[in-house]
Amino acid sequence: MPHRATVRPMLPFPSLETLRAACRALPPGDEAAVAAVHRRQDRLTKPPGSLGRLETLAAWLARWQGTPMPQIGRVAVLVFAGNHGVTARGVSPYPAAVTAQMVANFAAGGAAINQLTALAGATLRVVPLDLDRPTGDIAVAAAMTEAEFLDAVATGCAAVPAGLDLLCLGEMGIGNTTAAAALAAALFGGDGARWAGRGTGVDEAGLRRKQAAIDLALAHHGGALADPLEAARRLGGRELAAILGATLAARRQGIPVLLDGFATTVAAAPLACLAPGGLDHATVAHVSAEAGHRGLLAALGMSPLLDLGMRLGEGSGAALAVPLLRAAAACHAGMATFDSAGVSDVG
Amino acid sequence: MPHRATVRPMLPFPSLETLRAACRALPPGDEAAVAAVHRRQDRLTKPPGSLGRLETLAAWLARWQGTPMPQIGRVAVLVFAGNHGVTARGVSPYPAAVTAQMVANFAAGGAAINQLTALAGATLRVVPLDLDRPTGDIAVAAAMTEAEFLDAVATGCAAVPAGLDLLCLGEMGIGNTTAAAALAAALFGGDGARWAGRGTGVDEAGLRRKQAAIDLALAHHGGALADPLEAARRLGGRELAAILGATLAARRQGIPVLLDGFATTVAAAPLACLAPGGLDHATVAHVSAEAGHRGLLAALGMSPLLDLGMRLGEGSGAALAVPLLRAAAACHAGMATFDSAGVSDVG
Repeated sequence: MPHRATVRPMLPFPSLETLRAACRALPPGDEAAVAAVHRRQDRLTKPPGSLGRLETLAAWLARWQGTPMPQIGRVAVLVFAGNHGVTARGVSPYPAAVTAQMVANFAAGGAAINQLTALAGATLRVVPLDLDRPTGDIAVAAAMTEAEFLDAVATGCAAVPAGLDLLCLGEMGIGNTTAAAALAAALFGGDGARWAGRGTGVDEAGLRRKQAAIDLALAHHGGALADPLEAARRLGGRELAAILGATLAARRQGIPVLLDGFATTVAAAPLACLAPGGLDHATVAHVSAEAGHRGLLAALGMSPLLDLGMRLGEGSGAALAVPLLRAAAACHAGMATFDSAGVSDVG
Repeated sequence: MPHRATVRPMLPFPSLETLRAACRALPPGDEAAVAAVHRRQDRLTKPPGSLGRLETLAAWLARWQGTPMPQIGRVAVLVFAGNHGVTARGVSPYPAAVTAQMVANFAAGGAAINQLTALAGATLRVVPLDLDRPTGDIAVAAAMTEAEFLDAVATGCAAVPAGLDLLCLGEMGIGNTTAAAALAAALFGGDGARWAGRGTGVDEAGLRRKQAAIDLALAHHGGALADPLEAARRLGGRELAAILGATLAARRQGIPVLLDGFATTVAAAPLACLAPGGLDHATVAHVSAEAGHRGLLAALGMSPLLDLGMRLGEGSGAALAVPLLRAAAACHAGMATFDSAGVSDVG
């Protein structure tokens, strides 16, 4: 699509092929920084390994920030919002209008993510993507054209600020757990019964409608779903595509990523499917109460930081986990060594 | 002991009997505040229940702070330190001198808890208890006389500042996971094999010595351990007794408590054994990697906030969990309602 590329020079990926190539050419982590972290951890005034996950998180931050002394100073929370044609099938107890209403609530500071972002010492940016143009109904059509999909990915890429120490990603979109469940099924196998959950709290009949919509979508799109990017285009949503773009951009900019719940994790998952270690620069902040999330994390081999029964989205779990990363960095940087503190090491 | 009471009027409990009576006459929570929290939660701009544990934490804070709008402003971390005669049996890879060395490290700001307390926006106070007088070797003697035990409990009570919103409790004491495991066995059944863990990282031979010391202690003290306070006096330690006192004092002052890991949880457990709901004002911050902690929490019916493989003590897990409680209070207080935000509620 040379014309698009000419007219919109900011668009990083003029075609699915160039996007796919970028997803398969990800920069590696800084293993020298990791080795330096381990050398320092051995000398800090604590029994070896006793800070558990905080120690592995310090090494993980070092690997992807590319420094032996990682820090959590500049943190951004990006929340992408989109609307979904599949809502016409009664898959959510809330009307699609709530997506825009919640975006307004984010702007007014009244949502959970506003409180959690402030506590995390982070900046919040909400990016609505064509809320007046819902995606196609995935049960009978592609969610997006290739151009729409690439636009959304590009929006996600461009939304990542330079110079961040940590990027938190989240979403808002009535109906998007249906899209996410369908995408999970395409990427990891299984059907609607395996992946559909209650979302914002759909009742039993709604859950059955959700499963049916997913199964229809899987049958309709068939073999085209074998390609992770095609699956994301056909079954996903603009906000999910933007999360994919932002996760990719963060990797290219040396920014570790905290993923929020089910929909956000699914959105980023094509990176793991397209290249080994494609999501190594991302940590899942929490395991959601949404039915499919635990199985998705198992499929991805990812271990969440928190397990608190949350299922709100909005990036809420990601923002909530920021203090854990800040603690990991602070312990690593601030603790004394056995020598400097005059503490006896293992006898 | 009227003489003690006269000479030391600050001592709140002149005998085990008065302490036991206090443990059995705990003030109840504020159920009206809880009901008000639930009414407000139903109107906040989120699907019902979607903040998961954050919602139950807001209600829990309200119950024990006695207000429908709980806050996490003034937070204190108290770390009690003690030494243990049982260390002579080779139950720890570190020499007993490390207890005092780490207390000095706390004072100098070089320990993990210093970094974590600062991040939590809390104050840190470290209370060493007679470090130059280790407890008796529990395998063959009582850890403390009744007077020593009551002194330590009183120190813990007195260390709780007035007007706190949250109290975090932790400990430091080479050898104290042996004491804690013995106390857990006395309170909840089982032997050294069930409760002994690696502590700061003891090797296989050391673990066997630890189990043997616990089994000797259980046999030596026998039927006297049926009383939870006698068990705490005979098997525990000064820092563990102080934690018991601080947890009790917090209940009487309307202060919710965050307990750290295995030793801290065991130390407070006599309250649960002496009265139904005796630990309801306490939440366990994290489940430690120390072997006995998960089983202890199951026995107590308590669910930890974090599960990060930590096993450091020092109150580190408790301080790390403070932002979760602050988030719970902030979401509850700061979020808009459906009406105020113009967001459509469930259709």
